[in-house]
Amino acid sequence: MISIDELAAFCKKKGFVFRTSELYNGIAGFFDFGPVGVELKNNIKQAFWKTFVRSRDDVVGMDGAIITHPKVWQASGHTASFADLMLTTQSGEKLRADQFIEEQLNIPADGLDRDKIAALLRKHGLKHPKTKEPLEIAGAFNLMFTTNVGAVKSEDSLAYLRPETAQLIFSDFRQVMDTSRMKLPFGIAQMGKAFRNEISPRDFLFRSREFEQFEIEFFCHPKKLDDCPGYDSIKDIRVQILTAKHQEAGKDHETRTIDQLLKAKVFRTKWHAYWVAVFHRFFTSYGIRPENLRLREHLRDELAHYASACLDIEYRFPFGWKEIHGDADRGTFDLGQHQEASSQDQTVFDDATKEKVLPYVAAEPSQGIERAFLAFLFDAYDDDKDRGNIVLHLHPRLAPIQVAVFPLVNKLEQQAREVFRKLNGPFSAVFDRSGSIGRRYARADELGIPLCVTFDFDSLEDGMVTVRDRETTKQTRVKMAALADELKKQLER
Amino acid sequence: MISIDELAAFCKKKGFVFRTSELYNGIAGFFDFGPVGVELKNNIKQAFWKTFVRSRDDVVGMDGAIITHPKVWQASGHTASFADLMLTTQSGEKLRADQFIEEQLNIPADGLDRDKIAALLRKHGLKHPKTKEPLEIAGAFNLMFTTNVGAVKSEDSLAYLRPETAQLIFSDFRQVMDTSRMKLPFGIAQMGKAFRNEISPRDFLFRSREFEQFEIEFFCHPKKLDDCPGYDSIKDIRVQILTAKHQEAGKDHETRTIDQLLKAKVFRTKWHAYWVAVFHRFFTSYGIRPENLRLREHLRDELAHYASACLDIEYRFPFGWKEIHGDADRGTFDLGQHQEASSQDQTVFDDATKEKVLPYVAAEPSQGIERAFLAFLFDAYDDDKDRGNIVLHLHPRLAPIQVAVFPLVNKLEQQAREVFRKLNGPFSAVFDRSGSIGRRYARADELGIPLCVTFDFDSLEDGMVTVRDRETTKQTRVKMAALADELKKQLER
Repeated sequence: MISIDELAAFCKKKGFVFRTSELYNGIAGFFDFGPVGVELKNNIKQAFWKTFVRSRDDVVGMDGAIITHPKVWQASGHTASFADLMLTTQSGEKLRADQFIEEQLNIPADGLDRDKIAALLRKHGLKHPKTKEPLEIAGAFNLMFTTNVGAVKSEDSLAYLRPETAQLIFSDFRQVMDTSRMKLPFGIAQMGKAFRNEISPRDFLFRSREFEQFEIEFFCHPKKLDDCPGYDSIKDIRVQILTAKHQEAGKDHETRTIDQLLKAKVFRTKWHAYWVAVFHRFFTSYGIRPENLRLREHLRDELAHYASACLDIEYRFPFGWKEIHGDADRGTFDLGQHQEASSQDQTVFDDATKEKVLPYVAAEPSQGIERAFLAFLFDAYDDDKDRGNIVLHLHPRLAPIQVAVFPLVNKLEQQAREVFRKLNGPFSAVFDRSGSIGRRYARADELGIPLCVTFDFDSLEDGMVTVRDRETTKQTRVKMAALADELKKQLER
Repeated sequence: MISIDELAAFCKKKGFVFRTSELYNGIAGFFDFGPVGVELKNNIKQAFWKTFVRSRDDVVGMDGAIITHPKVWQASGHTASFADLMLTTQSGEKLRADQFIEEQLNIPADGLDRDKIAALLRKHGLKHPKTKEPLEIAGAFNLMFTTNVGAVKSEDSLAYLRPETAQLIFSDFRQVMDTSRMKLPFGIAQMGKAFRNEISPRDFLFRSREFEQFEIEFFCHPKKLDDCPGYDSIKDIRVQILTAKHQEAGKDHETRTIDQLLKAKVFRTKWHAYWVAVFHRFFTSYGIRPENLRLREHLRDELAHYASACLDIEYRFPFGWKEIHGDADRGTFDLGQHQEASSQDQTVFDDATKEKVLPYVAAEPSQGIERAFLAFLFDAYDDDKDRGNIVLHLHPRLAPIQVAVFPLVNKLEQQAREVFRKLNGPFSAVFDRSGSIGRRYARADELGIPLCVTFDFDSLEDGMVTVRDRETTKQTRVKMAALADELKKQLER
């Protein structure tokens, strides 16, 4: 597997992703997506939205503002505690405490409090990795970006760039529920940018300061957390899982069915199990190899104050197993907080039981779009020695370009362009006339283009073109009159 | 036509759009899109992207960061001059000068300088509309939101939230061109959020502080601004136009073909004419009535410092003809600025003429997504007295929901749900079992749902369902086995 730096270099070279404002030496933690990158990212986003919002009758979407009211983040607890502990040295070097502990001791450290960090520093005699100076806990650094709204800069005009999309779902809960006429259980989804002022952004897109999220809050009647009609369809899915128990014992992950995990109380409710399973299935159905995915149960120490259970979906990156998706059981914490802060009733009348209940968030699928983007790219990337070029084995629905059209020689350009014009629009297509056909196949492979169509001299006679498949490199002759239908069929295979 | 406030109330009631953080009394100029609003907005965005990026071989896309390097905005001139003059009174009331002049004198005032504003205030003896105090020019207020990146708040850590998507296209020009292997002439498109700290946000989504844009920079060889292969396909399009000359003479708009406007030098190049025309055609092809659209040529005073010509596409809003789209001929201004500021060559080698040229931006289609959203909604909105309900005549490809499925009576719910399950996914569908069929048709009309499918007692016998068309209210019986194909056909009509 290539390293994250090699992937970043590949992304830059092929126009997937580059550092923002490179002309001016960039800003750490911010990236721009180039021509093929934006298409791949949009295809991933649309696949999530189609699968989990448009195709479901129990989830509706919303799209809220990025600059948000400070009271939203006061109620949620973010102004008080969405912060990372920092370590400093006498010479002024700064490190993020949890990342440092994770690297040095190879244990999960997200959420460890001040006392535990201090104890670990003492116990292991940890020093700054470069300067070898002793480390002190410098205090907490809030990760929210701030700005001021209006003509006057003051405390009153302060606003935050949202550090997550989830919280707006809670503050808009009533309006969305009332206008969409949804009944419990149902979910609200949001996709869009979020911002975190990371102390040390790193690992390319993995921990950047500006990124996109896709989050769902799934609201249930608090006494019906196991009334999950879809459970039977996912209970036999087999997953790799690292349980809290195994983790504490220093053991590795094992393979279990979702149903076994529910019985073992790794999942406390069917709805929670269901949502983790359908996202796991999403990744495998879009081509990620199951052996590169695992679930990891959060340790008690790691759990956020609002969560009574949390499972991550991790991907096997070159820099280790890392979270690409998280799903917490948040209970009634958030709606309760907003109910108290706003003095506005957030309860829902339940027709069946004739009672007012504060909805319970049984699952909060929280997906980083760039992390999915990275996982799909790493899993698709293949330096194929036989072919002598890189091949991106991207799922046809995710591939930034679906079809490339070539004239065999430049003399046939006009006819090949005619073919291209018919395909471009119904398909996302490119035209390429430069270099040998072999070079053009290689170039298509590197962008993950599933199908190449070549117009040659025989085409003039028999009205057929050559269709070449990225996965098998097999070539078949197809009647031009049936070309669009044939390509569609091959892309949907 | 309903007022903008009435439209805002409708949007709130039906779940299209509401003020952000209403739970905490909101922040002026920020809005959240609800379940149907996000779908409508996404459909509009996808229609733009498909038409102008994916279906074209001379435009590629990109997606840059929102938080951007200060040097980008220094080079572009935004830090120095992206500002509005403010008027104040002794008691501290604040007004935006250009808006105030436009309202009071009913003349375009965008871009008027300090001296001209002062002269107009004197000449007409203008006073604050409420307090009747005299007005003074308080100075310029920069519209860019600022934030700080990293742990330390200082001048060095200052960054801007981009006030437009266009500028990142210039600063990334070389990387996008090199990785996409494009040759002049070609365009780079970007879609995404932009932020402007408006002094007085107003007219609902029309002038908000956070909004989305879709912008294209179209780069040409500076001597080939008329080499436009598509020109013939648009030259006979008839448009309403208010020329600068007519405007100065206080006359109204007239109707002309694009070609007549080129000959009259309203357009100075074919490429500029072409791009304005294809966006005009986009709006009419998605159902906006041509009589509600007009072009308006910018007056010399109005032109931004970088533009040698600019035309807006305006929509006839209840509050007057207002810009929904702008398109400036920006020349070589921006790439020249970045070349100078970064000391990095931005010229392109032209194969045909064997010379290095600084690409010329012949057209800059600049589209506000929320303004298109408003225009589509206003144009579609119809308080139909015959039906006794509101009907949104949205184009089927823009409609937030495509198909509604009803059981005639609750007893048939299971069978109707079976129909729904098959349609949801391939189509964006909803299931509705509440109230009379008439009430359900009305509810579907109000959300602009093009087709309703009812499962009734006859369906049990003959395997057919009733399909009702939003536009005609006509009902036809369709075999369930052929339902998906039939709906597809009707939606594509």
